[in-house]
Amino acid sequence: MNIDTDSTACPRGGPAARRRAAAWAYLSRVAEAPCRALLSFIEEDHRGDPEAAAEAVRSRAGLPDAVASATRARYATDVAERDLAVIARLGGRLVTRDSDEWPLLRTQQFGLPGAAVDGSPPVALWTVGAMGLERLESRAVAIVGTRAASGYGEHVTAEIAGDLAAQDYLVVSGAAYGVDGAAHRAALGAGGTTVAILACGVDRAYPAGHARLLRAIAEAGAVLSEYPPGVAPGRHRFLARNRLVAGLTDATVVVEAGRRSGALNTAGWAERMCRSLLAVPGPVTSATSVGCHMLLRQDRANLATDAEDVMEVAGPFGALGAPPGADGCARPTDGLTAVQLAVHDGLPARGTRPSEEVSVEAGVSLDETMGALAVLELAGLAVRAGEDWALVRADGPAAR
Amino acid sequence: MNIDTDSTACPRGGPAARRRAAAWAYLSRVAEAPCRALLSFIEEDHRGDPEAAAEAVRSRAGLPDAVASATRARYATDVAERDLAVIARLGGRLVTRDSDEWPLLRTQQFGLPGAAVDGSPPVALWTVGAMGLERLESRAVAIVGTRAASGYGEHVTAEIAGDLAAQDYLVVSGAAYGVDGAAHRAALGAGGTTVAILACGVDRAYPAGHARLLRAIAEAGAVLSEYPPGVAPGRHRFLARNRLVAGLTDATVVVEAGRRSGALNTAGWAERMCRSLLAVPGPVTSATSVGCHMLLRQDRANLATDAEDVMEVAGPFGALGAPPGADGCARPTDGLTAVQLAVHDGLPARGTRPSEEVSVEAGVSLDETMGALAVLELAGLAVRAGEDWALVRADGPAAR
Repeated sequence: MNIDTDSTACPRGGPAARRRAAAWAYLSRVAEAPCRALLSFIEEDHRGDPEAAAEAVRSRAGLPDAVASATRARYATDVAERDLAVIARLGGRLVTRDSDEWPLLRTQQFGLPGAAVDGSPPVALWTVGAMGLERLESRAVAIVGTRAASGYGEHVTAEIAGDLAAQDYLVVSGAAYGVDGAAHRAALGAGGTTVAILACGVDRAYPAGHARLLRAIAEAGAVLSEYPPGVAPGRHRFLARNRLVAGLTDATVVVEAGRRSGALNTAGWAERMCRSLLAVPGPVTSATSVGCHMLLRQDRANLATDAEDVMEVAGPFGALGAPPGADGCARPTDGLTAVQLAVHDGLPARGTRPSEEVSVEAGVSLDETMGALAVLELAGLAVRAGEDWALVRADGPAAR
Repeated sequence: MNIDTDSTACPRGGPAARRRAAAWAYLSRVAEAPCRALLSFIEEDHRGDPEAAAEAVRSRAGLPDAVASATRARYATDVAERDLAVIARLGGRLVTRDSDEWPLLRTQQFGLPGAAVDGSPPVALWTVGAMGLERLESRAVAIVGTRAASGYGEHVTAEIAGDLAAQDYLVVSGAAYGVDGAAHRAALGAGGTTVAILACGVDRAYPAGHARLLRAIAEAGAVLSEYPPGVAPGRHRFLARNRLVAGLTDATVVVEAGRRSGALNTAGWAERMCRSLLAVPGPVTSATSVGCHMLLRQDRANLATDAEDVMEVAGPFGALGAPPGADGCARPTDGLTAVQLAVHDGLPARGTRPSEEVSVEAGVSLDETMGALAVLELAGLAVRAGEDWALVRADGPAAR
């Protein structure tokens, strides 16, 4: 992106703040996102001190294996100052947990610690735009879908996104062609605020044909990424980006999706993170509605025909502040500790598994696993099957 | 309807059978259907003896209040012999609980005795056509929808009805314009069997524009009604007829329905009677899909895009045999152990599978799989098919 700006290349604040920002910038590049190991290294091992964590990564002294491995390729590459200069030149900023605008509640609701897939929150967010990222905390809706949207899909996207934006909902998407672009444009057209989350550095206009659209999005809202400037888009980064699109919003609306559309990946993240998920039906004769119909048939998504349907599940009080179990994710697992949750996740979806394997899968010691299994059994969430253990499936969205 | 026939005007059988048939004919006209009071008067107070029940109604002696009230207007009008002559002249017959072709299991699964709305089974069924009504007991699917079907709706109806008929499913509908007509025609076009259930006597072609279609339906299947010959259609009779459409089938598919379509009434009956209910999505911009989207949004219907989706819930063993659950509808897997559930899940959605493969799919040892299959068989949830095993589908609305 080329946004003309007069801002200085220096991050705000004194030398201490600058050092701290540089440490965050270093950490945001040193491991490929998402990286739960690095995040817990920063937050737990170093109590949220980025400079201490960055120094430890650089020095390679006493790193946990997972952190050592995740940072091996890039620990010696310190381009933090350059990255900060680039973002400043774009008129943007690096937003971290140090900042008032960090969407704290939202990022706290990312993937569960024990889940098999790494759905950890971003280390930091690089953003260009007028909008403070705290705005993501409420009334934020992701509207996603296939790049190959039909005329029907673009029309419905525009209706829903425009109506949501007009009702002061934040429209979040991925700036791709098709549904994403239609959503951003309709939000802008309604005089609303929209956020594009990229799978590359925010200095890159991707896709190139949306360079002008991205500038317009930044003027009225935000273009953001967990990747530092210069990072190129890549397949795994689209998947990681989808996690942010789902995770930084109350609800994800899939407007049109073919059988293998990336939008279904975003939908999966929304489910995993207990966000509301909606799908728009279409003609059963249309290949671009097959994915939506699949989500609906499998009872994974609520049906959305218009913005009203979306507003019903997405705040002002939306997923945030919803009492546990009241909406979005019904949770038989509410009240479990992180270790118990990890063990619960370590049980196979189908069939049984010896406790030793559950322990490995959960990343929890065998003793703790046995204790957690006993609790899960009492709670009716697991059963013994001879020497093995099996998940007890409860009905309801959380049991998927 | 004008079906040329050479049959005699006399019901089959000797004088005793004729008296009994005349009693049924009298009873089928003496109260407006549905009439739970009359039915239980026949079945319980008179142990299923229609002559005793008819005589009691005629004589007005010692009638329960509800029966006296329901029969007050018509008890003196005995046109049973005339009705039987008319149906015989049409080449049709009066089917009752005395007959081998009475769909007994199906009618036993009509509305619950305590329900607010009278969803009781018919007293008798007047039918014209080649098909024995016992055929309704399995693989019978109702396809219903708005009279004002769109081109999309007619197309999808024809696809689903044609494919179902080609797979030997019975296609049941109400002979109305729009979706109903498209369903009957597609079933006939596929060389299949179809049943039209009327809200008037079967001697009446309603709607008149479907007179030729009704003749074709009777030639290959059946045209039936709980109303005796000559009865005119009326609004309440359409609602009562909808109860038969839902109740005499495994599953109801709503293809297109506006917000106030009568098809939604049929859908309501299907739910109340614990039949499977499916709805076909369409463009959210189409008024004729609003009712379908409502059913899907409220999680009342499964989503259907094609005949496969319908066959998944309306199996050869369909809703029949599903044990009643707490809410009246089945949750047939309630009470299974985790291993039994895993084995149940390991059975193929469609077709059969050797036990070894079920074991692999379920992740359960072969010994345990064999044990679980035996339990599932006893519970009516699985059947042997030679060396293989197949799932018995019992997906009522509550089992989703």
